[in-house]
Amino acid sequence: MENFIAHNPTKVHFGKDVVGQLGEAAAQCGKKALLVYGRGSVLRNGSYQDTKDQLDKAGIEIIEYSGIKPNPIVEDVDKAAALGMEKEVDMVIAVGGGSVIDSAKIIAVCITEQCSGWDVMKELRDPVRALPIMAVLTLAATGTEMNAVAVLQNNQTMEKFGYRHPVMFPKHSFLDPNYTRSVPANHTGYGIVDLVAHVLESYFGYGDASLSDRFAASVILEAMEYGPQLMRNPDDYLLRARIMWAATNALNGLLSYGRLNGDFTSHSLGHQLSLLYDTPHGASLSIAFPAWMKHMIPKVGHRLEKLGRDLFGDPSAGGTIKRLESFFSEVSCPVRLGDIGVGPDQKDEIVALMNRNECNGKNPDNLLNDLDREQIVDLMFEA
Amino acid sequence: MENFIAHNPTKVHFGKDVVGQLGEAAAQCGKKALLVYGRGSVLRNGSYQDTKDQLDKAGIEIIEYSGIKPNPIVEDVDKAAALGMEKEVDMVIAVGGGSVIDSAKIIAVCITEQCSGWDVMKELRDPVRALPIMAVLTLAATGTEMNAVAVLQNNQTMEKFGYRHPVMFPKHSFLDPNYTRSVPANHTGYGIVDLVAHVLESYFGYGDASLSDRFAASVILEAMEYGPQLMRNPDDYLLRARIMWAATNALNGLLSYGRLNGDFTSHSLGHQLSLLYDTPHGASLSIAFPAWMKHMIPKVGHRLEKLGRDLFGDPSAGGTIKRLESFFSEVSCPVRLGDIGVGPDQKDEIVALMNRNECNGKNPDNLLNDLDREQIVDLMFEA
Repeated sequence: MENFIAHNPTKVHFGKDVVGQLGEAAAQCGKKALLVYGRGSVLRNGSYQDTKDQLDKAGIEIIEYSGIKPNPIVEDVDKAAALGMEKEVDMVIAVGGGSVIDSAKIIAVCITEQCSGWDVMKELRDPVRALPIMAVLTLAATGTEMNAVAVLQNNQTMEKFGYRHPVMFPKHSFLDPNYTRSVPANHTGYGIVDLVAHVLESYFGYGDASLSDRFAASVILEAMEYGPQLMRNPDDYLLRARIMWAATNALNGLLSYGRLNGDFTSHSLGHQLSLLYDTPHGASLSIAFPAWMKHMIPKVGHRLEKLGRDLFGDPSAGGTIKRLESFFSEVSCPVRLGDIGVGPDQKDEIVALMNRNECNGKNPDNLLNDLDREQIVDLMFEA
Repeated sequence: MENFIAHNPTKVHFGKDVVGQLGEAAAQCGKKALLVYGRGSVLRNGSYQDTKDQLDKAGIEIIEYSGIKPNPIVEDVDKAAALGMEKEVDMVIAVGGGSVIDSAKIIAVCITEQCSGWDVMKELRDPVRALPIMAVLTLAATGTEMNAVAVLQNNQTMEKFGYRHPVMFPKHSFLDPNYTRSVPANHTGYGIVDLVAHVLESYFGYGDASLSDRFAASVILEAMEYGPQLMRNPDDYLLRARIMWAATNALNGLLSYGRLNGDFTSHSLGHQLSLLYDTPHGASLSIAFPAWMKHMIPKVGHRLEKLGRDLFGDPSAGGTIKRLESFFSEVSCPVRLGDIGVGPDQKDEIVALMNRNECNGKNPDNLLNDLDREQIVDLMFEA
């Protein structure tokens, strides 16, 4: 069991109509808010209007920036930050899924640091503070609502990766499962894969953390029991709530305590697919993760065996991968590159980008230092 | 799944030599510290000296109050608070187990509120703030290091109960498993029972919180796997670490999310035994909890069955109680009043005190509103 610090200051408000608590929370942060969101869905599911009503009632002036993309790009962050600086906002409020909340985190740093988003991502700054961040979550997936991580994409440099800094913990996050009821089936499935991928990535970190192992199995079992049910009953509040809370716990630190880092290589591999083919994040993971695990059996086989025992009562590394893959398929996610229309003739460009961006999860203790990326991509094609 | 707020601002520093981070943390809270502790053990296990060294190095003036009792009494709190007020301390630092940290929490409120400890406990105050609280934990048991609860005893009024207020979250807690290596076998066992009792009490709260159920089973399984091993290997760092972290998670909120309250009646029943016979807290619980569960089978039988399935693969309510009781015995804890030398002739005084103090966990939704306390005490005697 490695030394660790457990600290998560985000206040999560979870359940029906919890956005009713947003106005009061925002009033404690100032008088002017930058309200950031994406495109249509937040207008349809009510979250945008509910948030605005709360801010109006609390007498908070609203500056809007909309149009954040599903794979969020740094240009939007810079434009929104410029607007926030110009209008001298006191806080940043995100309404949406992971892309919007991640963008809001970087925007909140850019405004206090008076710098560009890519400077933050590239760790050219060590921010002392950020504007208060509030999140109204509309998609169960990334866990960003209760952590200090943000992922951004740069189409100019063809890079996509994550950045973490403690100033980026949201001050308040509002999780009303009802807002996720309008999420279409494919994105519901992607979210489920994303949360399971986060659990697995922590799980493959270094260190004997028995309680974290049990919690990890708990979150995956929750997703495996209720994820497929939710795909069949997308309007069920309780199922939406279970998956939403599982996703939050998958990446709020809980599963990593006692372990050094995690191994976030699968995320890194998946990001390259998103860069090349605009593959949704969850879909990139359901392809990348099985391939990574197969490639890694020599190094993480014992962990896959333990996981198999905890999840399926079957301590077989290969069996564990197979069952997880079946589960990804069960929630309608692609598990091979062919499933997203990418053919073997595209292999070289994938490997080239992975090599250029040194896909290894930016983890100094990473298990994958001698990764054979070509073999991994072959496994992504394998029948 | 009930609405809930998940918020725990305590920063936990866990592992070997983490007290090395205390000086810097304390320096951010001021220049003068009230250092609170009990009797001998913190002098022997090094925690007292390490803490003092850190404060000295950080240039922080130390005012000491020692002699907090294992079942902490309000007189000590009032005396320590008076000292803190007189010396105008900036923070309260507790070095010890649950009794010392709980006392420090109430002291920190008394100093800012300029009031007596019992006024706080009786909820005659609604504190706006407390002095910053820091905890150096030397006993794995109560979970107080990462929550906002304190339990105090009043020998004049013969009352003992818990009080919770968000201002009482410790700002920093330092958990070095090495400090618990000198804890004697009996108190190691009491701590293990205490942590399991906390899990169970959350578990019997109202609401369908599937992930919290899984986490609850995880913590109990951790205690059942490593608790008995620790009793046999009291010097094992890793076992100490596992039990310490399990105890923290048993009562830091995690297991209650999605549920209304918990049912803390067993704690309340146990407190009466401590008041009458100075029974150590954990020992009072290993007697009170099995009796409570047996009495409650008509109401919580379905929960005991689910728990039995999750823990033992056996969905039998009676079987679950029996196995938990065996586990309490395995960690050398009493499970009947006879085991602590209390005879049937003392039954009436126990029932009388339970009735007078209205043992029901102070929970408005409590399952036990129509509790037959006499029957419960009979079950505490039963062969």
